[in-house]
Amino acid sequence: MYLATVRSRDARSTTVAVGDDRGWVILDDLADVHALLADADWRERAAHALTAERIAAEELDFLNPTPTPAKILCCGLNYRDHIVETGREIPAYPTLFAKFADTLTDPDATITVSGSGRVDWEAELAVVIGEPVAHADDAAAAAAILGYTVANDISMRDWQQRTLQWLQGKAFDRTTPIGPYIVTADVLDPRDGLRVECEVNGEIMQSGNTAELVFDAARLVSYISQFTRLNPGDVILTGTPGGVGMGMPEPRYLRNGDLLTTRIEGIGELRNTVMVTHQ
Amino acid sequence: MYLATVRSRDARSTTVAVGDDRGWVILDDLADVHALLADADWRERAAHALTAERIAAEELDFLNPTPTPAKILCCGLNYRDHIVETGREIPAYPTLFAKFADTLTDPDATITVSGSGRVDWEAELAVVIGEPVAHADDAAAAAAILGYTVANDISMRDWQQRTLQWLQGKAFDRTTPIGPYIVTADVLDPRDGLRVECEVNGEIMQSGNTAELVFDAARLVSYISQFTRLNPGDVILTGTPGGVGMGMPEPRYLRNGDLLTTRIEGIGELRNTVMVTHQ
Repeated sequence: MYLATVRSRDARSTTVAVGDDRGWVILDDLADVHALLADADWRERAAHALTAERIAAEELDFLNPTPTPAKILCCGLNYRDHIVETGREIPAYPTLFAKFADTLTDPDATITVSGSGRVDWEAELAVVIGEPVAHADDAAAAAAILGYTVANDISMRDWQQRTLQWLQGKAFDRTTPIGPYIVTADVLDPRDGLRVECEVNGEIMQSGNTAELVFDAARLVSYISQFTRLNPGDVILTGTPGGVGMGMPEPRYLRNGDLLTTRIEGIGELRNTVMVTHQ
Repeated sequence: MYLATVRSRDARSTTVAVGDDRGWVILDDLADVHALLADADWRERAAHALTAERIAAEELDFLNPTPTPAKILCCGLNYRDHIVETGREIPAYPTLFAKFADTLTDPDATITVSGSGRVDWEAELAVVIGEPVAHADDAAAAAAILGYTVANDISMRDWQQRTLQWLQGKAFDRTTPIGPYIVTADVLDPRDGLRVECEVNGEIMQSGNTAELVFDAARLVSYISQFTRLNPGDVILTGTPGGVGMGMPEPRYLRNGDLLTTRIEGIGELRNTVMVTHQ
């Protein structure tokens, strides 16, 4: 099943859409996926909705599916092939940092960054939590995963590298596009290998595979749940494969008007124009 | 003026109390300080309340004043004397990391940590935001500060040092006590110098002064506001002076049953018993 937050028909608010390979149905009494998950019977409700007549994805305006997560945690250094390629050792623990709900934006948003001259891309698989989870082993953590979506952890490298802690380069408001919708965990398993790609103006910059994740989705959820309880709608970004601009022999950063395309096989695609106004 | 979130008389919910040097008045239609700040006329309302009969602080059970901030940012390496003492250079930029709302707990809470053997103290001045603030200069940032309270950024050093990013050692649920109440910014200015102290079982471990802050409250709010908008009830922890357990010639960490007292001159005191169950 697919779960989305979409613009309402009157464009004045948002609503939920549920879908599958045959199309989408709108649940117009719910504002977003968080509201859907707050209903204990949401799976039955969504399944029932999908017995109705469908509309095509083209008729929907997909937004950030989870606009108000209380927690967003992000993992760095998590693609085995990229770690080996750069001569590092496989880490024993996930490197974790946070973002804020305000950091997220829509899957087709124009992303405006002011005050940075080194704006870089990081295509990432995002995990969305479906059930409260604390002190969970991997099996319990896997059961708490609602599904997967696509994100780009756009990073302001100048700010990120000003100090030892990356947060300030990772938490510019409305710079992490996410979506276009959540594919529930019963539909696909990233451990089976999903291609993760990032293009700038149509040129492929990153091409990785989720089978290379050192800490897979359940392992990350389990690890995080040892110190903080995760709740429905919380989001975990799982790290990015090789090919970021900073890592190139001649570092390359996003320029005004660049089109950034972020794609994960079996899930979907983000398309974001980037506006960079360096102060 | 002082602003607090306190346990309600029936102990089944929470309410707001406003006070000054002469005592406190309860506003029992408001659940917490966030709800108070949501009223545009809260200052008039609070001032009017203070014309009523007062109750003594001893009659109140003070809780975490800001239980649901959307953003908590923390600054590391911020006391000039301590930086110089350890041979480091004065930083050009604040080192920032995040906590979650769930990381906070009450000013008298018993703090239970499971899974860490290196639980350390960090007495800190906390800044609470009163007005939305974005891209602000220092003067506008200062005007957006509601006031100040006390926090202890209790840190699990083993987890903090597992990777380059500190978050996982700083974000254990219910391990950062904060309170007992907010002193509004018209009452005191930390730049004038407020003593910051931390005791373990009555022995003074930290004794610093807020006049030594490299990045003062307004500077931190201004800096952060360049990349993310801050909103009423958001919290900024300003860093800790020398004297943490990790920095001692023989590192010392909190043990089961230790009483941690955290005090800032002119604001108040936290008293927390720490229970450490190392797995």
